[in-house]
Amino acid sequence: MAGSDPLSSWNEGSTKQSILDFVRGVTTAGSPHFVKPEDRIAVFDNDGTLWSEQPSYFQLAFVFDRMKAMAPQHPEWKDNPLYTAVLNNDMKTVAAGGLKGLLELATVTHAGMTTDEFAKIVADWIASARHPKFNRLYTDIIYQPMLELLAYLRANGFKTFIVSGGGVEFMRVWVEQVYGIPPEQVIGSSIVTKFEMVAGVPVLTRLPQLNFMDDNVGKPVAINAHIGRKPIAAFGNSDGDLQMLQWTTINTGSRLGLIVHHTDAAREYAYVASSMGKLDVALKEAATRGWIVADMKNDWNRVFAFEDQK
Amino acid sequence: MAGSDPLSSWNEGSTKQSILDFVRGVTTAGSPHFVKPEDRIAVFDNDGTLWSEQPSYFQLAFVFDRMKAMAPQHPEWKDNPLYTAVLNNDMKTVAAGGLKGLLELATVTHAGMTTDEFAKIVADWIASARHPKFNRLYTDIIYQPMLELLAYLRANGFKTFIVSGGGVEFMRVWVEQVYGIPPEQVIGSSIVTKFEMVAGVPVLTRLPQLNFMDDNVGKPVAINAHIGRKPIAAFGNSDGDLQMLQWTTINTGSRLGLIVHHTDAAREYAYVASSMGKLDVALKEAATRGWIVADMKNDWNRVFAFEDQK
Repeated sequence: MAGSDPLSSWNEGSTKQSILDFVRGVTTAGSPHFVKPEDRIAVFDNDGTLWSEQPSYFQLAFVFDRMKAMAPQHPEWKDNPLYTAVLNNDMKTVAAGGLKGLLELATVTHAGMTTDEFAKIVADWIASARHPKFNRLYTDIIYQPMLELLAYLRANGFKTFIVSGGGVEFMRVWVEQVYGIPPEQVIGSSIVTKFEMVAGVPVLTRLPQLNFMDDNVGKPVAINAHIGRKPIAAFGNSDGDLQMLQWTTINTGSRLGLIVHHTDAAREYAYVASSMGKLDVALKEAATRGWIVADMKNDWNRVFAFEDQK
Repeated sequence: MAGSDPLSSWNEGSTKQSILDFVRGVTTAGSPHFVKPEDRIAVFDNDGTLWSEQPSYFQLAFVFDRMKAMAPQHPEWKDNPLYTAVLNNDMKTVAAGGLKGLLELATVTHAGMTTDEFAKIVADWIASARHPKFNRLYTDIIYQPMLELLAYLRANGFKTFIVSGGGVEFMRVWVEQVYGIPPEQVIGSSIVTKFEMVAGVPVLTRLPQLNFMDDNVGKPVAINAHIGRKPIAAFGNSDGDLQMLQWTTINTGSRLGLIVHHTDAAREYAYVASSMGKLDVALKEAATRGWIVADMKNDWNRVFAFEDQK
């Protein structure tokens, strides 16, 4: 079965059937739902949609590791309660700092080097850091059913994009190898970069200043800025994906919206009200908009490639 | 000859040979210059490189036409010297307003509607407005040799991008049909857009505020932000392309930088010091960097498709 079924990690049922029906409709010449290949744009959130986002966003683990690595060069950090909280793994204080605190930590750890230097730092980290629950590389904590979905859509002429709140230069280092999505199809949050000639060599220096936050209302803005046409399929898991789902699906023609619902505490995590990946408004709207809710526990016979298939 | 030569509008000589040699090198397996297909990224300026930019940027003609169309609804404009200058075709006063004045005119005419509404306005204009010298649609005033170059690179596995100071949403309306470049491979200047639900329908509203200026040092910044890898070939025509040429070519491996030099007053225009498309520093640097200077008069046997071939 696995050999012939492009979505073998998805259980038979209405969720899987809805995906298959949508793709058949938009790819069948003469179908009233047919969409030209160049307009088959599919957008995927990353954290909680393609890979896990618990116990905290993986990029936040990177931030913590970077703070610890950089601390010896920054004795002044001991006077900063937020920085000290990070160094003491005091997630409660860090969380209390809210988005503003997280952005400050991100800029401190993500700026002050060239883009090439940053890519090297990320590459080294992603090749060695391990997830606390699974004790595996973070790039192993990706959802096998979503990998199959990416490949299935591409095999049907779709161009697949990531549209994530995560840092675009953090993701681009590894997404091509892991998801088969090239760097130019990765959209994310970013900080300001500055072009300079240094000793006759052109570099882009990363500055400690937010450029764009690719979340909530930012997602359709970024999709339009980067892709320049409307997607026909959108995949998310939290309220941060609400506007992307609206922008994609409230339209004429056949459209697919899908929410990955984290319902499997045994194989992954079960949550809706987490500080990472809150799912409330988007879940309520799913019913009225016709968005598919993929129930991880019931719709997926395998979550990660390293599991045995049920 | 035209049937077998992918660059038939280019005269035989060192310019054409340099292009052919570069492409052969990066596409020949086993060559020391070989580049994997996914890394064959080529970036093209638009104004003055793919289409003409004289007697003024074509988007400025669009701005003038929009101001005139909008003027009846804006009696208050008669008290604004810059706006009055536009309405009186007083280019001297407009030019004296410099970049700041042009940006103000651009935001006044490019904002205050949704992205879909703006696209419709551009589509109507580009289908009807005519170039003052050639009395043809602006989309006819594109360089046939550059069209051949785009097609030739794509046939050799390159992905071609536009990286222009022009407005990204102004270009995307027509570039796919004219250049064969899809919207997601068009990078340009932009204004801020805002996501809103209007009567239950999601829209992006264009605000009168500059978001990003894709010129000079902005070009490598935008290339990195959008593409996420370094191009191996860059094509420009003015000092606004200097940093893009540096970013692309100052690197290990085989790289191609090319400057379109406007030397043909009879068939197009001859200029280096125009207020549009000034070419000074980049031309001087071409010699030391090994950038090719394509002399329109001598290297191109045809400039526009509507000409007879010499």
